[in-house]
Amino acid sequence: MSLPRIGVFDSGVGGLTVLKAIAEQLSAHYIYFGDTARLPYGTKSAGTVARYAIAASRFLESQNIDLLVIACNTATALALPAIEDAARVPVIGVVEPGASMAAEISRNSAAIVIATDATVSSHAYRDALKRHGLASLEKACPLFVPLVEEGWIEHPVTEQVARIYLDEAMAQASPGADVLVLACTHYPLIAPLLRRILPPSIQIVDSAESTARVVKQTLGGITEAASRELRAASSESASSRMTGGADRRATPMVAAPSLSEHRTFRFYVTDSTEKFKRLATRFLGRQVDRVEHVDLE
Amino acid sequence: MSLPRIGVFDSGVGGLTVLKAIAEQLSAHYIYFGDTARLPYGTKSAGTVARYAIAASRFLESQNIDLLVIACNTATALALPAIEDAARVPVIGVVEPGASMAAEISRNSAAIVIATDATVSSHAYRDALKRHGLASLEKACPLFVPLVEEGWIEHPVTEQVARIYLDEAMAQASPGADVLVLACTHYPLIAPLLRRILPPSIQIVDSAESTARVVKQTLGGITEAASRELRAASSESASSRMTGGADRRATPMVAAPSLSEHRTFRFYVTDSTEKFKRLATRFLGRQVDRVEHVDLE
Repeated sequence: MSLPRIGVFDSGVGGLTVLKAIAEQLSAHYIYFGDTARLPYGTKSAGTVARYAIAASRFLESQNIDLLVIACNTATALALPAIEDAARVPVIGVVEPGASMAAEISRNSAAIVIATDATVSSHAYRDALKRHGLASLEKACPLFVPLVEEGWIEHPVTEQVARIYLDEAMAQASPGADVLVLACTHYPLIAPLLRRILPPSIQIVDSAESTARVVKQTLGGITEAASRELRAASSESASSRMTGGADRRATPMVAAPSLSEHRTFRFYVTDSTEKFKRLATRFLGRQVDRVEHVDLE
Repeated sequence: MSLPRIGVFDSGVGGLTVLKAIAEQLSAHYIYFGDTARLPYGTKSAGTVARYAIAASRFLESQNIDLLVIACNTATALALPAIEDAARVPVIGVVEPGASMAAEISRNSAAIVIATDATVSSHAYRDALKRHGLASLEKACPLFVPLVEEGWIEHPVTEQVARIYLDEAMAQASPGADVLVLACTHYPLIAPLLRRILPPSIQIVDSAESTARVVKQTLGGITEAASRELRAASSESASSRMTGGADRRATPMVAAPSLSEHRTFRFYVTDSTEKFKRLATRFLGRQVDRVEHVDLE
C-alpha cells in the first residue's frame, strides 16, 4: 500500500490555499489542476462550469487519484452533484465543510458569508448554512481577489477596502452574527488583516481549513494504514534498500524523520505556467518551480 | 445604400468605451460582440486568443459588417495580423490609433502607458510607440479593471490606488514623459479621476477616442454617401411612406432632426447576459435592455 493520491481542482490559483491546508494535515501525493485558460468560472453558466469541472475531474482521475477535492467555490456551488455523478472516486467540495464548521462554532446561529459575486449569486452558502439551522448574510467582495493577486496582503488599500465591505456586511447582517465565513479560496491570505478589523465577538471560519478537516476524516482510514506501513518501511530502510516497483503509485521512500515529510506535489494548468508559478509560490508559501501545461480543449 | 454596419469585438464589456466613442462620432448600425464566456483573454496564450478572436470575427462578419473594430487590447496585441488575414472586411485594432495619437501630442517623445498585466507583457504599445519615435514606460495597473467593474469610478480607494500606480510609473518613466496612454478599454471611465491626479504637464491619450477617430477616417467615404442619401430620404419621407425592402441592411427611416439619431445597437455575448447588461449601462451611459446570448463553442 502507498500514500493516498489526492486530486485538487480549481479554476485557478485560489484552490492552493485548500491544498496548503490539506497538506499541513495529511501525508499524500497531491495533484493540483488549475483550469487557468478558462477562469474565471464565476461569470459562466452552471452548464458550462459543470462541463469544465467534469473534464478536469477526468484528467485528475487519469492520474489515479483516490479522492477529489473541488477547491473552487463556483464549481462546488454550481456543479458538485454533476461532478459526483461523473466521478469514480469520493468528491469533497468546499461549501459544506465551511457551513458545517460555522454551525459548530456559532452560538447565535447567525453568520456572515463573504465571497465573490458568483458565489453570492449562487446562494450555495446561504442554503448550506440554512440546512445547519443558521441564518446568514452573504456579501460579495469582488476586490479581494485582485488585491490578493496584486500581492497587497498587508496593505492600507486592502485594509480600507476590507473596512468598507465588512462595515456594509455587519450593517446588514443579524446583530447576533458571530461567525464570518471566508467563502472564497483567495481570502485565507488576508485572514490576519480581516481578524484585526473584525470585532472580537466574530470568529473566522476558513473554508480551506474546514475542507482539510473533512478530507482528513474521509481519508482517515487510508492514512492510518499508510502511516503504519511507513513506520514499518522507515525502520526497515535502516537495514535494507528499497527497490523500485512497477506500481506507479509507489511512494519514493526516504528515511524521513517524520510522516510530515511524505508529500509530493504536481501542478497542471491549462494556460500560461508563469503567472501560476509566481502566484503559487505566494499562496503555498513554498517555491513552486515545476508547473505543467495541459490542453483539455 | 444604407448606413455602415460596424462590428465591435471585445472579450467583455471594456470595448463598450470604444463603441461609445465611435457612436458619438458616427451614424451606423453597431453590432457588439463580447466573448464573456472566455474572458479574460489576458491570461491566455497568443494561439488561443487568435482562435477565439477569429471565431468572434466570423460571427460578426455573418452579421454583414462593413468594418471590424478589435476593441480589445489583448486581442489586438496578440492576434491582429491573424484576425486581418482571416477577415474579409477592414480591421482596426486599438493599439496603433493610441500610439499614433500619443506621437502627435507628445513634445518630448516620451510616454507612460498604463494597461493590464497582459497588455504590458505583450509590449505592443512600447513597440508601436517606438515605431513613432517615442520612448515609453509601461505600467501594469491590475486593480483598475475590478475597481471600475465595482462601480468605484469616483471613490477614495480608486484615487489612492491611482496615486500609488501613477507615482510608481512617474518615478520610473523618463522625466520628460508628457503623455499618459490609457491602454485598457476600462480606463476611460476613470479618466477624470486620473486627470485630477496627474501633473498638468502630462496629457491623457484615450485609446478609445483615438480608435474612434481612425474608424471615422476609414469610413469617411461611406458615411458621406450615407449622409447624402439620408438627407434625400428624409425630405422624401415628408410626402411618401417608406416601404420595407428585402435588403437586411435597410435602415429604419424616421424623419429624424439630425443624422446623429441614426444609430442602432445590437449586443451579443457568449455567457450570462445579466452582468453584461448592468455593466453595459454604466459603460455606455445609456440603458441596455436587450442582450443576446450566442454559443460559439
